[in-house]
Amino acid sequence: MQQLLAQMTLEEKIGQMTQLNISVINTTGVQKDVVLDSAKAAALVREFHIGSFLNGEAVPAAQWVRYSAALQRIALRESRLRVPIIYGIDHMHGASYVAGTAIFPHNINLGASFNPELARQTARATVLESADLGHHWVFAPVLDLGVNAYWPRFYETYGEDPLVASRMGAAFVKELQNNTEIAPYKVAGSGKHFIGYSDPRNGWDRTNALIPDQRLQELFRPPFQAAIDAGLKSIMINSGEINGEPVHASKAVLTDLLRGQMGFKGVAVTDWEDIIRLVRIQKVAANEKEATWMAIDAGVDMAMTPYTTTFCRLVKELVQEGRLTQARIDLSAGRVLQMKDEIGLFENPMPRADRLSRVGDPALRAQAVAAARESVVLLKNDNNTLPLAPTRVKRLLVVGPSADSRANLSGGWTLAWQGRPEEAYPKDVPTLVEALRQEYPNARVETMPYRNAAGKLTLASISAAAKQADAIVLALGERPYTEGLGNTSDLTLPDDQQQLTLAAQASGKPTILLMIGGRPGIIRNVTAGTKTIIWAGLPGYGGGTALAEIISGKTNPSGKLPFTYPQFAGHISNYHHDNNENSLDLSDFGAGFEQRGAKYKSSMLTEFGEGLSYTTYSYASLTLSDSLLRSKSAKLRATVRVTNTGARAGQEAVLWFLTDEVGRITRPVRMLKHFEKQAFAAGQSRDMSFEIDPLRDLSYPDGQGRPQLEDGWYTLRVGSQTARFRYTAGPVASTTPAPTGATGAVRPASRPAEAVAPH
Amino acid sequence: MQQLLAQMTLEEKIGQMTQLNISVINTTGVQKDVVLDSAKAAALVREFHIGSFLNGEAVPAAQWVRYSAALQRIALRESRLRVPIIYGIDHMHGASYVAGTAIFPHNINLGASFNPELARQTARATVLESADLGHHWVFAPVLDLGVNAYWPRFYETYGEDPLVASRMGAAFVKELQNNTEIAPYKVAGSGKHFIGYSDPRNGWDRTNALIPDQRLQELFRPPFQAAIDAGLKSIMINSGEINGEPVHASKAVLTDLLRGQMGFKGVAVTDWEDIIRLVRIQKVAANEKEATWMAIDAGVDMAMTPYTTTFCRLVKELVQEGRLTQARIDLSAGRVLQMKDEIGLFENPMPRADRLSRVGDPALRAQAVAAARESVVLLKNDNNTLPLAPTRVKRLLVVGPSADSRANLSGGWTLAWQGRPEEAYPKDVPTLVEALRQEYPNARVETMPYRNAAGKLTLASISAAAKQADAIVLALGERPYTEGLGNTSDLTLPDDQQQLTLAAQASGKPTILLMIGGRPGIIRNVTAGTKTIIWAGLPGYGGGTALAEIISGKTNPSGKLPFTYPQFAGHISNYHHDNNENSLDLSDFGAGFEQRGAKYKSSMLTEFGEGLSYTTYSYASLTLSDSLLRSKSAKLRATVRVTNTGARAGQEAVLWFLTDEVGRITRPVRMLKHFEKQAFAAGQSRDMSFEIDPLRDLSYPDGQGRPQLEDGWYTLRVGSQTARFRYTAGPVASTTPAPTGATGAVRPASRPAEAVAPH
Repeated sequence: MQQLLAQMTLEEKIGQMTQLNISVINTTGVQKDVVLDSAKAAALVREFHIGSFLNGEAVPAAQWVRYSAALQRIALRESRLRVPIIYGIDHMHGASYVAGTAIFPHNINLGASFNPELARQTARATVLESADLGHHWVFAPVLDLGVNAYWPRFYETYGEDPLVASRMGAAFVKELQNNTEIAPYKVAGSGKHFIGYSDPRNGWDRTNALIPDQRLQELFRPPFQAAIDAGLKSIMINSGEINGEPVHASKAVLTDLLRGQMGFKGVAVTDWEDIIRLVRIQKVAANEKEATWMAIDAGVDMAMTPYTTTFCRLVKELVQEGRLTQARIDLSAGRVLQMKDEIGLFENPMPRADRLSRVGDPALRAQAVAAARESVVLLKNDNNTLPLAPTRVKRLLVVGPSADSRANLSGGWTLAWQGRPEEAYPKDVPTLVEALRQEYPNARVETMPYRNAAGKLTLASISAAAKQADAIVLALGERPYTEGLGNTSDLTLPDDQQQLTLAAQASGKPTILLMIGGRPGIIRNVTAGTKTIIWAGLPGYGGGTALAEIISGKTNPSGKLPFTYPQFAGHISNYHHDNNENSLDLSDFGAGFEQRGAKYKSSMLTEFGEGLSYTTYSYASLTLSDSLLRSKSAKLRATVRVTNTGARAGQEAVLWFLTDEVGRITRPVRMLKHFEKQAFAAGQSRDMSFEIDPLRDLSYPDGQGRPQLEDGWYTLRVGSQTARFRYTAGPVASTTPAPTGATGAVRPASRPAEAVAPH
Repeated sequence: MQQLLAQMTLEEKIGQMTQLNISVINTTGVQKDVVLDSAKAAALVREFHIGSFLNGEAVPAAQWVRYSAALQRIALRESRLRVPIIYGIDHMHGASYVAGTAIFPHNINLGASFNPELARQTARATVLESADLGHHWVFAPVLDLGVNAYWPRFYETYGEDPLVASRMGAAFVKELQNNTEIAPYKVAGSGKHFIGYSDPRNGWDRTNALIPDQRLQELFRPPFQAAIDAGLKSIMINSGEINGEPVHASKAVLTDLLRGQMGFKGVAVTDWEDIIRLVRIQKVAANEKEATWMAIDAGVDMAMTPYTTTFCRLVKELVQEGRLTQARIDLSAGRVLQMKDEIGLFENPMPRADRLSRVGDPALRAQAVAAARESVVLLKNDNNTLPLAPTRVKRLLVVGPSADSRANLSGGWTLAWQGRPEEAYPKDVPTLVEALRQEYPNARVETMPYRNAAGKLTLASISAAAKQADAIVLALGERPYTEGLGNTSDLTLPDDQQQLTLAAQASGKPTILLMIGGRPGIIRNVTAGTKTIIWAGLPGYGGGTALAEIISGKTNPSGKLPFTYPQFAGHISNYHHDNNENSLDLSDFGAGFEQRGAKYKSSMLTEFGEGLSYTTYSYASLTLSDSLLRSKSAKLRATVRVTNTGARAGQEAVLWFLTDEVGRITRPVRMLKHFEKQAFAAGQSRDMSFEIDPLRDLSYPDGQGRPQLEDGWYTLRVGSQTARFRYTAGPVASTTPAPTGATGAVRPASRPAEAVAPH
């Protein structure tokens, strides 16, 4: 590639750094139309040497092949050195911009499965159903951390835990980039959005996040580092700001951290219009030329401009004026060419139509259903109300916005950016009510709108129907949304859905409350009246079937919550919050809120890692191979016996948490350090183990990413079991006592309380 | 003092660094009992050389004098070198721990007055009513920034603006420390809580705040810097963490920032038990000795231990072991002695009883009422529903938790830490309903409980009474709370108060909604049905009278909101949020929350600086003395003509905002840079002006506090007027155009929208 680069003119190199949107080369100028206007495309390649295009919507595979072939032919013909274009596309949970493909659960649901194999299957389906079509650059996976439930892209994350996101993300990247079934093609992934995108202070997309360096290193870096270590070929940049600095203008982030500390060698591409946003929105540059300089100086390799070629002109001027060096341009253009080379684009630039039967493969769809089964979480099941055996049910009422909706099960990034109107989804994908009819063939499974044509709530009709039913499934939910269009300022379940729920509960019949949607709605006011609650998230095309099977009992739920489900609209916390917060009770003493204080012991409805099953598991006999680790290279093996103590088979994700009892920076109350999911037959026991590696599991980074491994005590937790051990690199005094009270929650003495005598 | 220090033993010096609570030296061991147990006190001074005690509750002045005299006699007798003790006390809004004093509005209300003279009066009343009693160290003012409405100490701040907090805080400190009416005494203030205490991520007291250095410098430092520049003698340390680091263990904050950058020379005292909290709660030290070393090494001068003398022993051991130097101890003990000397304690250690008639001075009480009048904000007054002329009202219904409450008007830190039971407040302080009876002598002003003895809502009775009334005053509110006991996870107005409000509104009679309490409750659901809303905050003992007079029209309201009043429980923003956030609409597109999107254009109910009056003001003819500033030392004078265009006199706070149109760090959409409140007779005009100083008004600090003064354009806003000017230290190209679109809100093109042709 260095040879090719050496032959290129400045303009040709700049063209490799430029990515334009499909709308500027199709016939209509509208995003969704995958119909090439050859003249437009030819002109852009000829005059501006454009090296990449992106986007589209779900059209049939054959149409994509025609489009890609025509575009690539133009690129090869019009570019002097026959450089193929690389086409970027937002396939987010399966090949979601191709018609007829398998739509997997969104990442938040994959997180709930605690099963990285499902992330791998998602990546495999994505490339099997799109690589032949000329889609060689997939803008996935999202490696952001789901720590802020307000953020509208929460559902695109694997949840709030860095280890879950790391293992899922790495599994996705490895499969996406190394799959050999698609040979001769290879696909590049794009880890996004580098970095710190997911925790804006106010929850709105693309705004400012306050993330100190140490926190960035400890929480946000690991998923990206894991993906980079797995060979990730590109990253897409955070469109927001960290600490007031737009990331697209941050050399500290894009060069010092990404390249220097993390060792990334691939392509850093902007997100949508993000250079001009430095002028228009973030206002750190007075004009686009300055913004362009800032972005490239910071470390941007390619600009998703994506509507104009102004970027090409401005970069050229900046080089001519000496503000950017030729070497700097060579670096970025070289990285783009390198990526194209690594995926074999020069050898195999053209799409192919001879394997299109892969698109819509029933085996992939079946995998999507299987993934959905593992991806929902049974949060509450008082009196074993579920499963609801089909033999016991004559009449089932299914109501709520998601009762008969494919769109709500799938969420954003399905067929199109914001999803599509309900009628545009494939009819062979069962909605929840359709799937329930399948599961309850002998029952009358009915649904009815909860608003009439005039938009008024039909609570009286709902109540009447509820009284006739044996049980009511409340399919609550959200319509699809993506990015800023999903901004919200209150996560509380909307009034109308609350009223619907209360009306159904008033019937006295069992209600099954399904929370379908991209983030946890606050349901505090309606939980008491419902014995069963299922968090369904966005399970994709398999969601209807999976939920129906879990309700009927055909499937035993095994998902665990990959985030902390809040109970209040104003307190979004994470399980790995620090010790200090844990020390406080939610007093709600003031605010005249006396009704709250007693009722709610925690601000959390359900904790991270919780999830019920139709069977039960016991954890016993936690043992450590030693109680002391004497060096960085020493290892300690922990083993626990897990038994399925119930009467039916199930799958159990065994989660291992560590607590650093004392640290120079206040430590998280616990951090997940290992997890493993296994199937357990009824009555089956299995020894599960975790080998503790001090550098990996006991250290934490400082603000510059240097691991801090401190002597001291650690607590290991798995299921109901706990054990303590010590790490010390120094001499061990034989009398050193274990500190007491360090692991339990210690209540602070409140100001007037008096506990200790003066002397 | 260096001479005295030189004569002291190590133990004596350590005693100067130790502060114990009243409960360890009184007869009962209970905080509220201001009754000295001489034997306990003598032992502590003799054996541990304790140099300071603190706390108490509101008892009569004569009792305080007896107590202080006895304690000081013991200190002088039992300490070898006759070092007087310094007594610290939480007088927070007036001398609130003395019976019968004037209780001023809390700081959040003083912020609303935009009148620093009221902060000065509060400080004057505090010292006039307490300095003679032996209270020489007042733990005020709070200089934290009220940027997070969830934080239970929000009401103790002057609001969200650094300039307001700076000017109010400096006015308070100057008067508190320099008042000469209390000669021969002088009083030391304590600015608290250094630094970054007020913005915990999750809103709970004493937890972790994520505050990048630059934000700390730009927002949180100025009020402390202003108070230090005004001579502040001590600071109290933030009990929480910044970025995971407990501030009590942070050398970066307590030494590098506080001493190095900010030039503070006084005493840094811990807050309550904060050294042992490093072990028990924050867990950054394995034991108390380690914690003690960390705290002193970081920069602590005095430990409010406050129950034990363990600190004395541990410091001694640390010196003996060579971990702390004698010089380090001399530094802290010397600072404490220096403070005692500066306030004249060595010359006048004893309290005096000959001026106790000052306590309860009616003139001070009248000032508290006057302050209350300026401190409430009329947020909504459709159809000029207010004032409600007494001649028009025959029957007035006053309901809600604050209708007949002195406690709710006063909030925490009144008479006692958490306030006191309702019956413990002075009967000569009018409640709201009592004050309304005064204002409406010819009307029947009635109140009734909204819950019956069994705690059930009495909505039917309320409805019936409402129908009989000419108007209904809804006195909503919170009971007093202080610190962590006020933690909340949802700011939404409690259900019962919502129901009460809706029931009153259903009567069809005019309702006047008063929000009384320490933080803004979310009232979105009840605002539409009410034509008038008053934010009353915590106006103190004058609150009843002030509110009654504003309702009747005797007082013309002049307060403006010193914070941004949120409309949603999940979006707490500040007026000085950055440009990026401003660029987004609140779409609420997803979440099935369709009823929200259209209805609420902003997540804010009322913006910072807004507030209505019974008259109107026009702003016209904004002029600048130049359109260009050519150097750091140049000045630019802006003048605007403000006219009272209504029919009655009023007071108008003129607020001047500046916008830095482009900055290297994304800039706030506007920042208050100057304010001035003036009285305006009906019809009166006045030229108001603001001299812009580039270094003070145009620069912003980097993370190390170095001012960044960038060439570029600025927009000045005052009332309805705007003007632009430019600062440049370099050559001015005659053709340099003003950037366009830089000040208006520019909407980002959303992903599928297409606006620009490709080339």
